[in-house]
Amino acid sequence: MSEVAGRMAIQAGAHSLEMEQGGCGMLLGGVTGVAPARVVVVGGGVSGVNAARMAIGLEAEVTVIDRNLERLAEIEQQFGAAVTTIFSTRAAVEDYVLDADLVIGAVLVPGGAAPKLITEEMVRGMKRGSVIVDISIDQGGCAETSRPTTHAAPTYILHEVVHYCVANMPGAVARTSTFALNNATLPFILALADKGPGRALADDPHLLAGLNVHRGRITHRAVAEALSVPAQDPRLAIGG
Amino acid sequence: MSEVAGRMAIQAGAHSLEMEQGGCGMLLGGVTGVAPARVVVVGGGVSGVNAARMAIGLEAEVTVIDRNLERLAEIEQQFGAAVTTIFSTRAAVEDYVLDADLVIGAVLVPGGAAPKLITEEMVRGMKRGSVIVDISIDQGGCAETSRPTTHAAPTYILHEVVHYCVANMPGAVARTSTFALNNATLPFILALADKGPGRALADDPHLLAGLNVHRGRITHRAVAEALSVPAQDPRLAIGG
Amino acid sequence: MSEVAGRMAIQAGAHSLEMEQGGCGMLLGGVTGVAPARVVVVGGGVSGVNAARMAIGLEAEVTVIDRNLERLAEIEQQFGAAVTTIFSTRAAVEDYVLDADLVIGAVLVPGGAAPKLITEEMVRGMKRGSVIVDISIDQGGCAETSRPTTHAAPTYILHEVVHYCVANMPGAVARTSTFALNNATLPFILALADKGPGRALADDPHLLAGLNVHRGRITHRAVAEALSVPAQDPRLAIGG
Amino acid sequence: MSEVAGRMAIQAGAHSLEMEQGGCGMLLGGVTGVAPARVVVVGGGVSGVNAARMAIGLEAEVTVIDRNLERLAEIEQQFGAAVTTIFSTRAAVEDYVLDADLVIGAVLVPGGAAPKLITEEMVRGMKRGSVIVDISIDQGGCAETSRPTTHAAPTYILHEVVHYCVANMPGAVARTSTFALNNATLPFILALADKGPGRALADDPHLLAGLNVHRGRITHRAVAEALSVPAQDPRLAIGG
Amino acid sequence: MSEVAGRMAIQAGAHSLEMEQGGCGMLLGGVTGVAPARVVVVGGGVSGVNAARMAIGLEAEVTVIDRNLERLAEIEQQFGAAVTTIFSTRAAVEDYVLDADLVIGAVLVPGGAAPKLITEEMVRGMKRGSVIVDISIDQGGCAETSRPTTHAAPTYILHEVVHYCVANMPGAVARTSTFALNNATLPFILALADKGPGRALADDPHLLAGLNVHRGRITHRAVAEALSVPAQDPRLAIGG
Amino acid sequence: MSEVAGRMAIQAGAHSLEMEQGGCGMLLGGVTGVAPARVVVVGGGVSGVNAARMAIGLEAEVTVIDRNLERLAEIEQQFGAAVTTIFSTRAAVEDYVLDADLVIGAVLVPGGAAPKLITEEMVRGMKRGSVIVDISIDQGGCAETSRPTTHAAPTYILHEVVHYCVANMPGAVARTSTFALNNATLPFILALADKGPGRALADDPHLLAGLNVHRGRITHRAVAEALSVPAQDPRLAIGG
Repeated sequence: MSEVAGRMAIQAGAHSLEMEQGGCGMLLGGVTGVAPARVVVVGGGVSGVNAARMAIGLEAEVTVIDRNLERLAEIEQQFGAAVTTIFSTRAAVEDYVLDADLVIGAVLVPGGAAPKLITEEMVRGMKRGSVIVDISIDQGGCAETSRPTTHAAPTYILHEVVHYCVANMPGAVARTSTFALNNATLPFILALADKGPGRALADDPHLLAGLNVHRGRITHRAVAEALSVPAQDPRLAIGG
Repeated sequence: MSEVAGRMAIQAGAHSLEMEQGGCGMLLGGVTGVAPARVVVVGGGVSGVNAARMAIGLEAEVTVIDRNLERLAEIEQQFGAAVTTIFSTRAAVEDYVLDADLVIGAVLVPGGAAPKLITEEMVRGMKRGSVIVDISIDQGGCAETSRPTTHAAPTYILHEVVHYCVANMPGAVARTSTFALNNATLPFILALADKGPGRALADDPHLLAGLNVHRGRITHRAVAEALSVPAQDPRLAIGG
Repeated sequence: MSEVAGRMAIQAGAHSLEMEQGGCGMLLGGVTGVAPARVVVVGGGVSGVNAARMAIGLEAEVTVIDRNLERLAEIEQQFGAAVTTIFSTRAAVEDYVLDADLVIGAVLVPGGAAPKLITEEMVRGMKRGSVIVDISIDQGGCAETSRPTTHAAPTYILHEVVHYCVANMPGAVARTSTFALNNATLPFILALADKGPGRALADDPHLLAGLNVHRGRITHRAVAEALSVPAQDPRLAIGG
Repeated sequence: MSEVAGRMAIQAGAHSLEMEQGGCGMLLGGVTGVAPARVVVVGGGVSGVNAARMAIGLEAEVTVIDRNLERLAEIEQQFGAAVTTIFSTRAAVEDYVLDADLVIGAVLVPGGAAPKLITEEMVRGMKRGSVIVDISIDQGGCAETSRPTTHAAPTYILHEVVHYCVANMPGAVARTSTFALNNATLPFILALADKGPGRALADDPHLLAGLNVHRGRITHRAVAEALSVPAQDPRLAIGG
Repeated sequence: MSEVAGRMAIQAGAHSLEMEQGGCGMLLGGVTGVAPARVVVVGGGVSGVNAARMAIGLEAEVTVIDRNLERLAEIEQQFGAAVTTIFSTRAAVEDYVLDADLVIGAVLVPGGAAPKLITEEMVRGMKRGSVIVDISIDQGGCAETSRPTTHAAPTYILHEVVHYCVANMPGAVARTSTFALNNATLPFILALADKGPGRALADDPHLLAGLNVHRGRITHRAVAEALSVPAQDPRLAIGG
Repeated sequence: MSEVAGRMAIQAGAHSLEMEQGGCGMLLGGVTGVAPARVVVVGGGVSGVNAARMAIGLEAEVTVIDRNLERLAEIEQQFGAAVTTIFSTRAAVEDYVLDADLVIGAVLVPGGAAPKLITEEMVRGMKRGSVIVDISIDQGGCAETSRPTTHAAPTYILHEVVHYCVANMPGAVARTSTFALNNATLPFILALADKGPGRALADDPHLLAGLNVHRGRITHRAVAEALSVPAQDPRLAIGG
């Protein structure tokens, strides 16, 4: 789903830059003789890389910011000269966000709340008609100005910046998402059906890592922390 | 403007494929393990090539149909394995349109009415939730089912196919379009200002070729033919 | 050797598609205005990826089918828009094989027999003059209709489909294969020569993993399973 | 047809390099750690460029030799670092041919006999098991050692070099060639049918340029020169 | 020679950006997590395109400025997302030059003096340790601050900006330049030797266009204009 | 820093190939019709890959030699047809070095002395005016003829081969290097500041692996071996 969301984010961003949506009327890739838009992707995980990939495909000028140098090196290797990678510091985020035409918030922390890397002050400083697409919205958003929207009314304008913060972005391309989800879950479903939940969880650490709740107790550390309740070790839980 | 329209057509098409717009919910490029959308570009001129380029950038499966083999060879050379070029026959158009998820109508004849290469019968046979973006709409459209729409209400659904037929598509990205237009027209404007219209037209065959009307008479052959009135030779007109 | 076999498979397939070999007379990449061949690679391991790479290089329309999503994601990352990756289900294999001009069977299970993913019924449904190259033939083949052939008589036609099932495909390019094999085995040979087999096997788990038989007992699990005999743990074997 | 022949030449060359065909057993692209084959394309016209393109696709080390610098500049622009372009002198042809694993003879002079750029002495100096594919064979071949062969017996070995000199190479991929030929000739056929030959030839200088014989007299200069007979001006011929 | 000069310009610029040469110590392509240098190429002719190509190869962020839109469109087509093309206006030149780390002056007017597009005021506003490489220096330079230097002392610093203005830049890579020059001139030399100057000039308009002086009179319009003397028509000159 | 050094090595090599520096006057990428330089990178680690990447970017003919096949496979996958990978044997090193125009020595062994893979005899056999850039010089160099130089006097000529052996190559691009170093070390510095050295080292095996000396005793195995003194286990050292 992260792959879908990352790719969707660019077509949502391109659409939001149109005049009718309140954007400044820029084409992501520009045209001959006219500069392309500057796209800044905050977060270099699966969503961020897929967003960068589509933005590069549309010939925008793309920067990815992350604080994991190894991740950035992989991105450099994959996209070469077509991308600029920047080590994440508060100063770097501010510099690039203020200069951006389209910001993709792709800071996802598994299970936890997204850190607010893009402050309201930065948003105030952004250009009129620029756009923020906050993929992290399902975890609270990584911009202080993000609040969830729907596919029916996907955007709002705050401080003259268009915000696209649709919760469940992959729902817009339900056909593609359904196939993707089936592919990802089919092996687990077969295991659950063949072996029953107990054995399936015991046999497969990946499946076990996805266990959020067991008999009323939270077994996923990040979820527990986000809710400020104690977490139970999932291995112990299923063994009980 | 053709460059802008061609590039816009793909982001309009991607957006129209979303569920909320009545599309079948496909992501143009698919994702890992899920097939991409099939994009068929009818017409390999500047608009068509720019549409193909953006569709390839978004990792769709792209076919360009044209009846000019030299043009197709240039497209093959530019995009290599990322594009399939098909010589245009009625049978080929039908085969590819019926199988497409997104059809880009990019058949532009300078000054004249676009030929109706995509028949209503073909549209009836297209898949539910597929999309037609008709860039040729300013010249009447190249699908029999196209009728002009606006940026405020850009699409309608006919025979279960989403139609995006916005007249003046470049208006959606007015900032980029304005710069593009300035760049293209500035040399002519300077010439008109410096020399006056008569001398400027006499000196520059490109400018002269753009003269549509002179002292009440139509001087552009294709415009005249579309209106079924006689055309005056522009060189004679300005010489008069 | 998998790398060699995968690359050879495409040149064998291209050759088998020629009229003289009984193929339908298609050029893998098509030409300007004429559609390329559809190449379906079943199995995304080293052989499959190398086959895909060469087929993309020849500008065919290439699909890779595998049931490992992580593997498919790597292939997507490497080849981008030039490849379509499809999650493997029986239905997907059937859909793509029936529509293919060239099928590459690259389902390799280390030591074991290849699963028969391509059924005789599918082969019956394939187009006249289409081609199957079965790289898995050394392990019995992944098509029900595959039977081993030789470099002297590499193909046969069954159900109007050309089968290329040469056992030891890399033998056709012996010069390249010999260098490749030397490069891969030299470190092991130096270790065996310097240390003797016992110490070399004990020091290097990769070498040990390649031990098939020791003092008359089979020490490779997959080989043992294929022959339905018990396997001895290789670590215990050399320790004895 | 030049496009088909150029592309075919590489798959014919790759096949001829196999042991069974008498080649030295090299894979065009090599594999990891093993050098690729050196492919030298003599002649940078449509056939040569298509041959280079396929050879680059298979990851060979490719050099194109031509004496037209503008043509070489276009090839440099199209393929970048993947190709080396060399200005054609007798010394350059000799240097590169002697060092090649696969030589593609693609020196085509419209209507005339191909110049013998590759001398028998050069062929004698080539490596054992190297390959010459002479696309120019329909015009006599551009190697002194070339003589026409057939699809049934496509190669012979001379001076330890495999020669592939099939006249009418596109016949091997008849399906692709037929479509290509139809696409190229359809506009002319429609014109001939609609207007009759006289008017069609008079209206279209391209068609006229293809007129070889008219009422028993040769009207194509190069054909006439090759046969040492006088040529009649085609415009006068059809006017008579 | 323009091709050589354009390519040389980037390696000269990269070298000049080193600390020892007075540059600001930037690597053109940056590294993972660190932004690349901004390279602005003023002029999109052969030199400029070759400079852009090398700068893209080194993974800099490259912009080409020219006032010919068709030329920019070709550059866009060749380099895609890796380059930004900007229509040349005085404002655009200033914006991009002030922001650049490396400026390549590639404004060449055949035979005439280069226009001073980069003013001294712009140079004063450039960043400390940035670099100008002025390929146009053989025609007076396109920066007001450019003055010719030599390979022995190639740079000087003015307004804290390193200037590399070596006249005859291709001399640095004499081996490559010599071959390039031979290739370009050989056909003319053969013609002059075979036919004598008069007939050779009469037969070949390209050679004639290169005639600068004939019997003491200047026959090249741009040279004559640069020297403010009357030009003689070269065709008349050789006819006399 | 390896990334910086690898990239710098190519611009240093390109500069050293100029006539003024004593090189043979070749442009790395050649030009249309003139062959590019042959660049041989000995060692496929981070430095070597970055050197290869820049050399490919400048359109040289690039070969990477390493004895780790997996590493070579990654390089093949990243650069495709643009690179040749060769398995390292003494014979292979000799073959390729003798034929090279530019040799990049990138054999880095963490902490230890670089092996002398390039012998003085090989250097004697190299072409006049060819260049060696020895990135390994900080560890003694991987050519027998390498001795450290400085940015002020970066090269010397031995056996007619230009040697560039600047210790601390990244110092030339201090600005880029400083940012790169900050990015890489910031997390460690924060940990050291927040936790104190003892706890920081205990918590992070990467930091611990970088501990060279502790209370007067060497705790890094390779450093100790290079100095022929005993190494103390760093885990024990900080625990003491």
